[in-house]
Amino acid sequence: MNDNQITNSRELLPEPTIRRLPWYLAYVTLLRKNDVEYVSSTKIADELNVDSSQIAKDLSFLNIKGKTRIGYEVASLEQALRDFLGFDQSHNAVMVGSGSLGAALISDSGLQRYGLNIVAGVDIDPKIVGSEIGGIPIYHIDRLKELVKKMHIRIGIVAVPVDSAQDVADTMVAAGIKGIWNFTPYRIRVRDGVVIANTSIYSHLALMYNRLGTLNL
Amino acid sequence: MNDNQITNSRELLPEPTIRRLPWYLAYVTLLRKNDVEYVSSTKIADELNVDSSQIAKDLSFLNIKGKTRIGYEVASLEQALRDFLGFDQSHNAVMVGSGSLGAALISDSGLQRYGLNIVAGVDIDPKIVGSEIGGIPIYHIDRLKELVKKMHIRIGIVAVPVDSAQDVADTMVAAGIKGIWNFTPYRIRVRDGVVIANTSIYSHLALMYNRLGTLNL
Repeated sequence: MNDNQITNSRELLPEPTIRRLPWYLAYVTLLRKNDVEYVSSTKIADELNVDSSQIAKDLSFLNIKGKTRIGYEVASLEQALRDFLGFDQSHNAVMVGSGSLGAALISDSGLQRYGLNIVAGVDIDPKIVGSEIGGIPIYHIDRLKELVKKMHIRIGIVAVPVDSAQDVADTMVAAGIKGIWNFTPYRIRVRDGVVIANTSIYSHLALMYNRLGTLNL
Repeated sequence: MNDNQITNSRELLPEPTIRRLPWYLAYVTLLRKNDVEYVSSTKIADELNVDSSQIAKDLSFLNIKGKTRIGYEVASLEQALRDFLGFDQSHNAVMVGSGSLGAALISDSGLQRYGLNIVAGVDIDPKIVGSEIGGIPIYHIDRLKELVKKMHIRIGIVAVPVDSAQDVADTMVAAGIKGIWNFTPYRIRVRDGVVIANTSIYSHLALMYNRLGTLNL
């Protein structure tokens, strides 16, 4: 897909590393706001409860070096992490389904700060199509292909009922969407070359209930 | 924490199993809506791309048996999964932070369908305290302990800026919250006995950007 050596090596980045990098970013952002200038991987390890050799290994993917004894410069590490994670770029996305969760996500300006630019929503409900949510226009899903092309959209967010998750994903892929962010608990299947990221918030709830031992059986 | 044998054994349930069970639930719910009566673990395996022996093992935690050759009765399996996962019970929760994401989650009626009953929000912003979001009253965080007791709240959802995530979590634990659902990318630390569930939506975004290879470095 890419002819860029750096991008290729980055595609092989292990998923657990990608999951941990935003934790480091959150922590060094906090340090920078508190005017801390340097941080060691040992200090990050203590704070985040991650092995310090793991942190050094994770950070070795970035183009940044720590200094012996004083560690990483906080501001540089923060910027290197934001660059590496793509949070300072703008990635156009379409929200598919604008019911309760979809509308909520459209309204979450936090996503914008992490580089996700929701430029349109699509739905099938005639009561919603033609309206705006948080300033974002909602179109009929029949126009998806046209929108994807015109608005340079590569990412689609799925927040539809479970029943239609697979159908909607098929429509998205046919319209040229390359990455699907799935908020439904349904396991969407796509052909090779399309990226799926699953955010199973209900699984996290189930885990919480179970671990709390609050269930009366 | 529990004197109940069943609950104790359930607390040892492996996390990957708990994560997969909602997938099975989503799938059998769909089957039931399509009037399918029986489903085998092989069929579930094919649909969800999970090993069929893994599915049989996961479902063995539930009090349900499949029949030779025809498999599980769909309606019974759906109900057994909902019961087991706690989605049909009501778990009172407080939303801590009612900015963009917090307000969005309060407005997501989907959480209610999965047993999460957000009964109150707390904030420190005088412009928000005293108001309502989606019918849910927002109180000052100083009243958290009183609310937790009065409203039988065990779960707190953290949707505050990264800078205050740890402070807010400490306040929640001191107020008697037993389970923290953390939507910030900050790694909150709590004492033993308090449950943390992390939903790192920004990590999923980072993974998507990386896998899409859309980053220009």
